[in-house]
Amino acid sequence: MRYPKGIKKDYQSVIHYDNRGMNLEDDLNTTNEYYRISDIALIYKKPTPITIAKVDYTSRCEAVIKEAYFKTPSTTDYNGLYKGKYIDFEAKETKLNNFPLKNIHNHQIEHLKKVRTNGGIGFVIVSFVKHNKVFLLTTEKLIEYIKNNKQKSIPLSYFEKEGHIIKQNYSPRLDYLKIIEKIYFKGD
Amino acid sequence: MRYPKGIKKDYQSVIHYDNRGMNLEDDLNTTNEYYRISDIALIYKKPTPITIAKVDYTSRCEAVIKEAYFKTPSTTDYNGLYKGKYIDFEAKETKLNNFPLKNIHNHQIEHLKKVRTNGGIGFVIVSFVKHNKVFLLTTEKLIEYIKNNKQKSIPLSYFEKEGHIIKQNYSPRLDYLKIIEKIYFKGD
Repeated sequence: MRYPKGIKKDYQSVIHYDNRGMNLEDDLNTTNEYYRISDIALIYKKPTPITIAKVDYTSRCEAVIKEAYFKTPSTTDYNGLYKGKYIDFEAKETKLNNFPLKNIHNHQIEHLKKVRTNGGIGFVIVSFVKHNKVFLLTTEKLIEYIKNNKQKSIPLSYFEKEGHIIKQNYSPRLDYLKIIEKIYFKGD
Repeated sequence: MRYPKGIKKDYQSVIHYDNRGMNLEDDLNTTNEYYRISDIALIYKKPTPITIAKVDYTSRCEAVIKEAYFKTPSTTDYNGLYKGKYIDFEAKETKLNNFPLKNIHNHQIEHLKKVRTNGGIGFVIVSFVKHNKVFLLTTEKLIEYIKNNKQKSIPLSYFEKEGHIIKQNYSPRLDYLKIIEKIYFKGD
């Protein structure tokens, strides 16, 4: 693993990270920023999709959106590039002992399936807040569960068995690409 | 080239497309939709980045954004996946005989450079409205021009020489992946 300029491995090891935890989105944003600065990968969270209804251009400084609505996303929240490969994922937190499938839209699952058929790498990252555990589950394993089970949620035990735990560190906070490297690149 | 189910090549040939022209964004959106339906590629326009300042949750139906501001985009407008490869581009129209470089933000050019170093495929699509010509220019050729010239715009002649003209058809409207296929996949 390479480190960004100015951050030495020794320095990292003396920081006592107490897992007090930002939320998953913040953790992923700082992780992706680390990947970008370190020239490891180029992965961003997409902006929230909205429909703009009214814009006020009268301000001397800048346009102000006065009326807009949230749109149902047609894709996942995160995508980008790692070693030439297309990366695509959705990230969710759950406070339960399971991951309710209503938290991920049907068309997002369809999107992840298409990522797979088009040769990309897709997955979900699920944070079990109460357990302080974050998992990566590949599209393959997500689809497999949905296909074989009629439950409306995926239990933690399935993530323990078929998912990959993402270790929480100081920097990068959630090094999910380490897992992607192992599964798809067979490197390191 | 494959065609989506229900559209036959014969049918296409009898349609007289008069080039009355939607705008570039619409043309690219319908092209990307065609690619998705035909299982050729998975490319989307990203939502407009905004900062939300005020949301009204009092409506019984849905939340209404009451105050928001446009953000300067830190990446390009379009990205996605073609045959396992990461695709990334910015699209712009110009009514002049040149493409003013102020139309593309510096950090967007930096982003395209990073796409390249991370092994992805990046480019710009520029529509010369008056000339009814749409070009694809690779990141390499874009950077080359900026490096070797001190002008604040790229003349049409540079696109004619170093770019690739995208033919305008009925469907797909602007088949830019045909050019990407030729440059980077050497296929078909």
